Parts: sequence; C-alpha cells; structure tokens
Amino acid sequence: MIKPIIGNVDFIESLRGKKATFMLALSNTKTANIEGITQAGIPGMIYLTPTLDSEFVCTGEVRSLENIAETPKGVPTPALLTRGVHLLAPYGRVELLDLGLEVKPKVDYFKIHSFNIEPSQNIAKGANIEAQELFQKGVDFGQSYECKDEYIILGESVPSGTTTAMATAIGLKHKVKEYFSSSFKDVPNDIRENTLKLALSNLTHNDDIFSVLSKVSDNMLIFNAGFILGLNNRVPLVLAGGTQMACVLLIVDRMLKLMGGRMESSNLSLCTTKWVAEDKESDIKALLELLSLPINAYYANFDFALSQHPALKLYDEGEAKEGVGAGGALIYGFLNGLSKEQITKQVEAFLA
Amino acid sequence: MIKPIIGNVDFIESLRGKKATFMLALSNTKTANIEGITQAGIPGMIYLTPTLDSEFVCTGEVRSLENIAETPKGVPTPALLTRGVHLLAPYGRVELLDLGLEVKPKVDYFKIHSFNIEPSQNIAKGANIEAQELFQKGVDFGQSYECKDEYIILGESVPSGTTTAMATAIGLKHKVKEYFSSSFKDVPNDIRENTLKLALSNLTHNDDIFSVLSKVSDNMLIFNAGFILGLNNRVPLVLAGGTQMACVLLIVDRMLKLMGGRMESSNLSLCTTKWVAEDKESDIKALLELLSLPINAYYANFDFALSQHPALKLYDEGEAKEGVGAGGALIYGFLNGLSKEQITKQVEAFLA
Repeated sequence: MIKPIIGNVDFIESLRGKKATFMLALSNTKTANIEGITQAGIPGMIYLTPTLDSEFVCTGEVRSLENIAETPKGVPTPALLTRGVHLLAPYGRVELLDLGLEVKPKVDYFKIHSFNIEPSQNIAKGANIEAQELFQKGVDFGQSYECKDEYIILGESVPSGTTTAMATAIGLKHKVKEYFSSSFKDVPNDIRENTLKLALSNLTHNDDIFSVLSKVSDNMLIFNAGFILGLNNRVPLVLAGGTQMACVLLIVDRMLKLMGGRMESSNLSLCTTKWVAEDKESDIKALLELLSLPINAYYANFDFALSQHPALKLYDEGEAKEGVGAGGALIYGFLNGLSKEQITKQVEAFLA
Repeated sequence: MIKPIIGNVDFIESLRGKKATFMLALSNTKTANIEGITQAGIPGMIYLTPTLDSEFVCTGEVRSLENIAETPKGVPTPALLTRGVHLLAPYGRVELLDLGLEVKPKVDYFKIHSFNIEPSQNIAKGANIEAQELFQKGVDFGQSYECKDEYIILGESVPSGTTTAMATAIGLKHKVKEYFSSSFKDVPNDIRENTLKLALSNLTHNDDIFSVLSKVSDNMLIFNAGFILGLNNRVPLVLAGGTQMACVLLIVDRMLKLMGGRMESSNLSLCTTKWVAEDKESDIKALLELLSLPINAYYANFDFALSQHPALKLYDEGEAKEGVGAGGALIYGFLNGLSKEQITKQVEAFLA
C-alpha cells in the first residue's frame, strides 16, 4: 500500500502504529486571484479554500461557506481524504499554521499557530514577501516546537501554490521546468506560463536567495523551509504533498549549500499520492533527485478504482492530484490499519 | 456519530484520536435498598452493582458475584458498552474512585483512589453525609490530580443515583421536576415519589447548601462537584452521564454563585447516550440550560438497531438509558475510529 519513490520502506515502516500530529500550513497568495490559474476552489472565492479545508479537517463542517470547496468541474477537495482518515484512524491532534490567511478558520479548541503573517501578493507583479523575516519565523518555530505525538505530518492548502512553487524552483536556478507540469509541454497553459514569465522577469542577477523568494515565492514555501531547518531532524517529519513540498526541500537544500551547512535528514521524508507519483506531466522523483540532502519519499497506493462516484473518478483522471496533506494522510491511514475499501467508503459517505 | 446537545462540535473534535483516562466514581447510598426504587442490579444485591460494574470494566470479569449485574427484566448493565469500547479502542487507563462502597472491587494493579468515605444513608430518612468535608475531599483531589492521558472521562455507578440527583436538584430549589423523569408525570412511580417527598420534608428554610446536600444527596454528586472545582479547567473533562452528571453541574454552579466565584469552563463537557438525549420523560438539555456556567454537551448517536438480542433491544425501548459512563465511552469509541457495527458486535459477544 505504501510504495517508495526514493529510499526504502524502513523510515515509514518505523512509524507504523504511531500517532502523528497533523499540521496544516495555510496561506493565501494573490496569485490565485488570476482567473483560471487554479482549480482549487470556488471561482471568485478561491481565497477561502485553505480556510474551508482546515475547518473541514478539524470539525467535519465548512463554516465560512455553505458548501465544501469544489473545483469548477466539481472535483471535491482532497480534504475529504484527510478528514476521512482522521475519522477512521485519528491523528493524535490537528494543528493549524496561519501563514497569511484572508479569512481565519472558524474553529475553537484547535491550536492555531499564528505568526502575524499577511497573505502574499501576486507573483506576476512581485510577491512582496519579507522573506528573511518569514524564514526566520519558520526557524524559530521549528526550534521551539514541542511535538506531543511521535511524529509530524505537515500538509498544506495554498491555492495556486504549484505555480508559486514552480516559479520558486526556477528562480533558484534549478532546471526543473520539465519536472513540474504539463502546462509547459503537451498542454500549454497560457495563463500559468504567462504568470511565470512575468514573475521571473522581475528577477535580476543581483538578487540573493531571500530577494528571489520575496519576489516569486509564497509564504508556505519559505516558512516551511525555515521550519525544517529549525526542527533540525529532532522529530520525524512527513512532508505531505507533491511538487510544492519538493520545492520546500529545494529551498532547504539551497539554504544549506549557501551557508556551507549540513543537516542530518534521516528523520525527513515526503509522502504524496499515487496521482502525483504516477503523473506523466510532472516528475516528483526527478525533483527530489536534485537534492543533495538524502531523504525518503513515498506514495500511497490509493485511487478511487473501488468507487463509482463520478466526482471521485475525476481524481483518477488526473483532475486533482494532491493537497491538504492527502498523500500523507493516506499513508498514515495505511500505517494504522486502514484499507483502501474503508477509506473509499468514508470519502463516499461525505458526498452522499 | 457525535451530536451536540449544547454548544458546537469543536471541543469534542479537538479530542479526536487522543487517549483518555477513564475514571469511574463508585458509591452506595442506602436509598437503593428501598424495594423497587431502582432496576440497576440484582434484587437484594443492588448494593453490589458499582462493585461489579467496576470489576467488569477493569478486568472483563465480575468477581464479587457470579453473573454480571442485570436488572429484574434482564437489562444488562451499561458497563457492557464501557468495557466493549475499552476492548476495541482502549482508554489510556481505568481508575476507580471509591466514594463509599459496601464492597471493595476485587481488582489488582488498577488505581483505586480511596478517601475514607462511607456509603450514605437513605435520603428518605436523611442521607447523613458530612457534605462539606466530602466536598473538600473532592476539591483537594481535583487540585492534586495529575492526569497521565490527555483528558479525563468521568463516569459513575451509583444505584438509585437518579433519585438522589433529583432530590438534590429540587433541594437546591431548581424547578427541575419535569426535566428529570416520567415518574412524576405519565408514569407515576409511587416508591420514588414517596422517597423524594420524605427526603425533601427533612429540609428546612435554615438549611445552607451543605446542609441540604447532607440530607438529600449522595456522595458521588458532592465529591464530583468538588472535583470539578478543584480541577479548575486544568484538564479537559468529559462528564460521562445523564441527569446525575447534570446535577453535579448544578451543584458546581450553585457553589460558584454562593462564593461569588467564577470558573473558566471551556474544558468542561458532558457526554451522554442517545437514550438520555432523546428520552421523552426527562430533558437533559433543559437541565443544562439552567447552568450559568457555559459547557459543551454531546450525545453518542448509538442504539441497538443493528442487534437482534432481546436484552439489548430493551435499551432502545427505554428500559435502561445510561450509567458506568456509557455515553462518554461510546463517544470515545467514535473519536477513535470505532463504528456502531463494531461496538454492537462486541457487546453481543459478552452476552453470547
């Protein structure tokens, strides 16, 4: 059920049966307001997606809107998977990271870590992020964070976050275009390509790493890179995501090189979905192979083959691939005894 | 599976996946010796019920008698639910509070907190409780108690405890008769009504709160009111019970008003069964709405609809409703991934 992308199964097997803190990094970038750039949410209300996702994972209810976030074609949010696993094989706790939200999640009792971070701007015009300060906030949080479970699963909900991740990886001068997305190859996406071109055109040869990040990145990428360095291998960490989490690792890797530093990374891993791992239009494995930092990466061998629900079949058709830590959630479910059948039925029950 | 009675789901959802200490408050009142006043146990041996319940929850065996406590009509003790959940999704630990037992539970290795408390007398003649001293023991215990899990579920087993709870609520001058039980309305229960009348006739206008409690209450109610005040919101607490636990809260509320005190109650909740929540002959919601203290309250959406066992069907027919923390146990089960099917099968297995 759990397949390695890089490394062997030992790291993830050593977490079998253990409780994890599920941490959800939430952020808005105004890049998502560009019409047509993302499917992750309700047109005109894309900015609500991380808020609604986190409300649903915590409480099973969406409070800042009546209906759960759906993409225009009706692909339901991957938060259904994350919540579904929580009902069947609960995480030790769910904690939220407010990394710049337009609308705060309406949940009581759940820990919401706040850092006084504003949503970032549209990268086409310059994201205008205080990157060094934000990165430092991530480092501080990683250094001081006390995990009450045995490991951390870190997911994210950042609409248009794959676009800002791609801009960031390219801005850091990785040759990654072909590893990211079809948008550039078989299925050119003018909106996204145009946004990237505009974003990258703001960069100059004099830009240092923080200057690059401040222009073309998003809060989640920068903060989490700091978080990983601050945590410094102290607690097993599952980055639950696809190319965005890979980009976080590219930032970490670059930062370490810059500082001439080293970090033990035996406790660092990435877990994603089959839809990402088998995506023909991106290459998560190649992205991870760019890293000097050795890590283990896995995907959950889960699809909706057992479901007849048309909205869920869209996942298997590549319309949605990852998000809200779905891949890490599925792997957590498998590590705690759940079957593909059980998870499928639970997700179907949400849509009934 | 978990439905709010008062408040929203956030408090209980924040406990999803977390381990609880299951604490069982055990007490005898000689009120239970009045023939016909309670169904909770074996005629002539009603006083053994809390002892047997606690032995069964801890060990799966009833040691102080051959067969598990049954009511005359053969309604099995709700301890079956409490133990059943423990087998499928174990509590972090089970601890017993001896609040005045005729017979000590025969269990080794389990923590039995003892406070040198005697069983209380029949309220018809005056319960004769050293109420202030007992209350203070509860406060002390709450102040010093160190929870080794993430929260506490506090259940009770006190035969005829609903009668003493009703006497207490009325004695504290709450207009609650109609919120408690049918005994006074459609189905007059002469024995119970007579007992209450006799109990209340012992009260005078000069009685202070402790004097009232000493005459018409029981040890569990008084001690737990002190416990809640002593704990002072320091640890999340689930009061697992129906009208008796609501009465504990009425005492807490009255005590706070008397002292002009305030207590943060965000970590205080009540969890009960569907049989109590939907009981047409009592009104748990109305009882809780008497409180000045804001709390969250929930019920477990569980019944024996999936069972064909005649003894279990009696629950759905209203013959037994709550006790031994069954409602809190069911909610704990749901918070830890159990389904109605699993719990039903486990309970049926005990009766096979």
